Amino acid sequence: MTKPSRRDLANAIRFLAIDAVEAAKSGHPGMPMGMADIAEVLWNDFLRHSPDNPGWPNRDRFVLSNGHGSMLQYALLHLSGYDVPIEELKRFRQLESKTPGHPENFMTPGVETTTGPLGQGFANAVGFALAEKLLAQRYNRPGFEVVDHRTWVFLGDGCLMEGISHEAASLAGTWGLGKLVAFWDDNGISIDGQVQGWFTDDTPARFEAYGWRVIRGVDGHDPDEVRTAIETALRHDDKPVLVCCRTTIGFGSPAKAGKESSHGAPLGKDEVEATRKALGWDHGPFEVPAAIAEAWRANARGAAREAEWNALFERYAAQFPQEAAELQRRLRGELPEGFSAAADAYIARLQSEGPVVASRKASQMAIEAFAPLLPELIGGSADLAHSNLTVWKGSQPVTSGSPDANYVNYGVREFGMTAIANALALHGGFIPYDATFLVFSDYARNAVRMSALMRAHAIHVYTHDSIGLGEDGPTHQPVEHLASLRYIPNNDVWRPCDAVESAVAWKAAIERRDGPSCLVFSRQNLQHQPRSEQQVRDIARGGYVLKDSKGAPEIILIATGSEVELATAAAEQLGDHVRVVSMPSTTVFDRQDAAYRESVLPSSVRRRVAVEAGVTGFWRQYVGLDGAVVGIDTFGASAPAGDLYRHFGITVDAVVAAAKAL
Amino acid sequence: MTKPSRRDLANAIRFLAIDAVEAAKSGHPGMPMGMADIAEVLWNDFLRHSPDNPGWPNRDRFVLSNGHGSMLQYALLHLSGYDVPIEELKRFRQLESKTPGHPENFMTPGVETTTGPLGQGFANAVGFALAEKLLAQRYNRPGFEVVDHRTWVFLGDGCLMEGISHEAASLAGTWGLGKLVAFWDDNGISIDGQVQGWFTDDTPARFEAYGWRVIRGVDGHDPDEVRTAIETALRHDDKPVLVCCRTTIGFGSPAKAGKESSHGAPLGKDEVEATRKALGWDHGPFEVPAAIAEAWRANARGAAREAEWNALFERYAAQFPQEAAELQRRLRGELPEGFSAAADAYIARLQSEGPVVASRKASQMAIEAFAPLLPELIGGSADLAHSNLTVWKGSQPVTSGSPDANYVNYGVREFGMTAIANALALHGGFIPYDATFLVFSDYARNAVRMSALMRAHAIHVYTHDSIGLGEDGPTHQPVEHLASLRYIPNNDVWRPCDAVESAVAWKAAIERRDGPSCLVFSRQNLQHQPRSEQQVRDIARGGYVLKDSKGAPEIILIATGSEVELATAAAEQLGDHVRVVSMPSTTVFDRQDAAYRESVLPSSVRRRVAVEAGVTGFWRQYVGLDGAVVGIDTFGASAPAGDLYRHFGITVDAVVAAAKAL
Repeated sequence: MTKPSRRDLANAIRFLAIDAVEAAKSGHPGMPMGMADIAEVLWNDFLRHSPDNPGWPNRDRFVLSNGHGSMLQYALLHLSGYDVPIEELKRFRQLESKTPGHPENFMTPGVETTTGPLGQGFANAVGFALAEKLLAQRYNRPGFEVVDHRTWVFLGDGCLMEGISHEAASLAGTWGLGKLVAFWDDNGISIDGQVQGWFTDDTPARFEAYGWRVIRGVDGHDPDEVRTAIETALRHDDKPVLVCCRTTIGFGSPAKAGKESSHGAPLGKDEVEATRKALGWDHGPFEVPAAIAEAWRANARGAAREAEWNALFERYAAQFPQEAAELQRRLRGELPEGFSAAADAYIARLQSEGPVVASRKASQMAIEAFAPLLPELIGGSADLAHSNLTVWKGSQPVTSGSPDANYVNYGVREFGMTAIANALALHGGFIPYDATFLVFSDYARNAVRMSALMRAHAIHVYTHDSIGLGEDGPTHQPVEHLASLRYIPNNDVWRPCDAVESAVAWKAAIERRDGPSCLVFSRQNLQHQPRSEQQVRDIARGGYVLKDSKGAPEIILIATGSEVELATAAAEQLGDHVRVVSMPSTTVFDRQDAAYRESVLPSSVRRRVAVEAGVTGFWRQYVGLDGAVVGIDTFGASAPAGDLYRHFGITVDAVVAAAKAL
Repeated sequence: MTKPSRRDLANAIRFLAIDAVEAAKSGHPGMPMGMADIAEVLWNDFLRHSPDNPGWPNRDRFVLSNGHGSMLQYALLHLSGYDVPIEELKRFRQLESKTPGHPENFMTPGVETTTGPLGQGFANAVGFALAEKLLAQRYNRPGFEVVDHRTWVFLGDGCLMEGISHEAASLAGTWGLGKLVAFWDDNGISIDGQVQGWFTDDTPARFEAYGWRVIRGVDGHDPDEVRTAIETALRHDDKPVLVCCRTTIGFGSPAKAGKESSHGAPLGKDEVEATRKALGWDHGPFEVPAAIAEAWRANARGAAREAEWNALFERYAAQFPQEAAELQRRLRGELPEGFSAAADAYIARLQSEGPVVASRKASQMAIEAFAPLLPELIGGSADLAHSNLTVWKGSQPVTSGSPDANYVNYGVREFGMTAIANALALHGGFIPYDATFLVFSDYARNAVRMSALMRAHAIHVYTHDSIGLGEDGPTHQPVEHLASLRYIPNNDVWRPCDAVESAVAWKAAIERRDGPSCLVFSRQNLQHQPRSEQQVRDIARGGYVLKDSKGAPEIILIATGSEVELATAAAEQLGDHVRVVSMPSTTVFDRQDAAYRESVLPSSVRRRVAVEAGVTGFWRQYVGLDGAVVGIDTFGASAPAGDLYRHFGITVDAVVAAAKAL
């Protein structure tokens, strides 16, 4: 057989996508058909990866931000030799296949991040490129470019319409992420049809305004043009690059090319036949001719590249053993030896010293204590550094160019921040923490969800956690946010009641590797709570008896954060038969074994009052229909915090009255 | 006394802001001090309003998107003669004052929208301008420009960093909103300090890329330059205008001008003194000299302007009585006579016909039935029109220029869409509905919250409401969203179980004037449920007995949406002692009187099972600790819907087993 043409290679992608969507009776053929030629050039001529080792640290990162075109990525992974066999492509969109509807990093080797929610993949790509830049800055030495890889991202009109594209592109420009290359699938079509009615931006001009290099007018179906564009993109390393590719959605389909009808549904049997004819692809479903398969396979090339890098790294390790060991530790996602003990010692000291501070201040103290041990910790805030208290003595802005850069001024960009932090976590080498006011977790909400879904080790710091923030008023006062964050699966939420619990929450968040933690802190000062050593240990279980009754409890008061001191004061008034449970993390408590949970909340005790300055319905799962909840189910108001607590009836008296009424 | 200078007039704003922040010991003086000169020129020379009648329909809309500078707006309202007396300024940020920390449309006459969450005010302004354009298009007649007002919006660097600014600016450009003028407070400072480290956009170029007219380099402290810029802005009506004003934050403060320290805290006694000296303002706190007060007062001018418009409208009404009556009805926010009866007739017909359709299809049928009666209904979707099924036969895109335009192709911009829809509701004359997949309500979440806080009559349509959407997988499958939306105060959430409940939900959303409704619909077909006339009436109460036990119930099954048919099938298997409650809206049910709630869920019956394809914790408030919940507390997966329901154990068998285990 003759050497396959580039078009043949691209058609292999097209028909794997077409056939898989047809078999699944569901999916999105249009985008893979449209971007196949671009992907073919990128993957075969430029992408540096190692299909046999998807975890090779120095691989290029490839992100499909328009994730509905997942079959493009699965076809690429399959063809280039990842462990995504043809059987898995035949099981596209079936339960527990490696080929889910949208790319999922935890299901498929070679998928770097989970995409589908538009715009976030693009922001993830910015985060990957930032991670590379910072690791290179810290670890590379002359002649030893041990960190040296690129990030490539495909994105569609939908990604560009989303607000997060603005936030991420702006930061990428400011940071001069020269190893980031984005390919815009400029096909003029989105789900509702031709985009002229709702998308008239001059996108190239827009990206130039962010400080990007823009390569205009590339024919996305001409491999030579695509190749030249990429070569141009690689010529400089000072700015991120947008390659604007004119493409035809559903390319090759006689009836559906250029139409939204090719976007999100199978082409249908007849049209598949017609497309086969039109593109001269006379192979059966899921058949890839040997010569084409052979031309695609990248395992050997990848292994050689990896071996070369391994040799480089070995020489680097010989010359810079400390740096090499630290980098490897970070990339493995392991904490430094002794971290846990050091953290426990700090926690014990706090318990004995008993500082009375706002928990946001306690959070900063914990960062001061832990960050010097953790070069992988990279902080940031959405323009609220001095309110969130996320800076510490060792903070160095990423724009400083310093090898110790560890702090991101994200600007007022909560959503972009969180998606970028997710990517810092997924890239490896970093434990990111980001921050904003709790109420503005709303702006980032789907990215928080994505951290949880992707099992990203990200820490989201949310301060100003209730009406206790006072005068800024209801636009700034969270009410439903704690409950809403706790309901995100695999998302740990902590709301500590004092400096000790705050430090424990930080430790837990740092040690939790398979998912995010939201750390929720107060603006106002909180009392210190006395505890035994056992009680200090039990904080990590999410909920524990802070102050016990004499004998079996008749009444249990459950509280979190700033309301724990109300509960303890109420218990004083109510008498010896009352137990106080501090519940800094319901999500962690719910994971404890039944015996422990029963020991804290004995099922026979039904006289229970929960106290939290948030929605009450959430707490019924702990107090039942027979208990009571002191909380707030309306919006807050603008006034000094003390006035608000009184106005909304979140007081010691209210807790006492509720307990007595049971 | 001599005629006050423009600077004197502006200084009145500055010192009211300074003094109020000082008195409250909290607030943001820097922005009012920086934008006072711009505001003075705009309000005294251009703004067409009527302080004695803040509800005058043809007033210009003024929006303070950088809402932390609320004292600027309160000073303007006070000085120009709104019912915001000096006593209220002295009570800045105190409980129930007219001067809360951020501007709130429901607290203060003259405040059009609630701002503070950055970027949303700007998007609201785009919505106001769209409302004006559409009403003008429909109702104006040659010589009768009865709808003819402008929208002016102030915004800061923070608003411009937020992603929503991209979404809103892009749409404003596409729509050619020529009566929208935005003033960028280009002071180079945000909370974290000088913005160069995180905000390096070429903002003028960016806005030109959206199709805006940009007026660059205006000295925001030179009234003549500001005046000229506004005159230039008014010269054309084809494009929205961005006026770029260089300003100094904290202008006039010797020690804090140009610094972030003036942003969010009182200047402090000494610095206030120094500022008084520097600006030559030798009046006491809250004192405005009579001549300055007199020069500001706009009541007479406003009343004259309003009288002129009233006369015009009277002539219009004489010549176009039908249009005038319809416009007035719409502006009053009243539904057409007979709407309720017509809707009830439609609902009764559905009950007898019993169509088996997806509830998203039932939603579209309801729109088809109701929209012809409601010219104020303006739809839209974030690029999912044919998935959300939000288009109907009478849909006309707003870009058509048609007087009947009633449909917005928002593109993939959920957050911008929702904030724009909020403004359509607040403007008057419209009942907006927007739409996306339920999972992507996340992208819009804070705007949904803002509809509820602002009491905006907006309808948010969310389809694809559970794992029942199938193959698109966990990125697209809501799990925690129903619970999270229900916890937003003042937000009604409906999840109907068939076409009849869907129509009732639509009717309720249309008739609810003081807050938003989220209508949540399935992708998949749902069975029709038999009902008596009384049961049909009771749907509107949020929860009702759909299928009762023989005699007193021993077990109650509670379900919503697609899970109601599981509950009824389970009841068949369980026997005569089981009651099935359909609970399409927990939020509405919770508002019913205690007797009704007791009649549906008798407190003596503790054997209760709730069934919903969402997080289980939420339902404990209805089933208590003794009941059971069949739901899902993990992320979904990519597979056909039937496989997923079985995989996650949301089945008739699971409901039966749960009930038997009680």
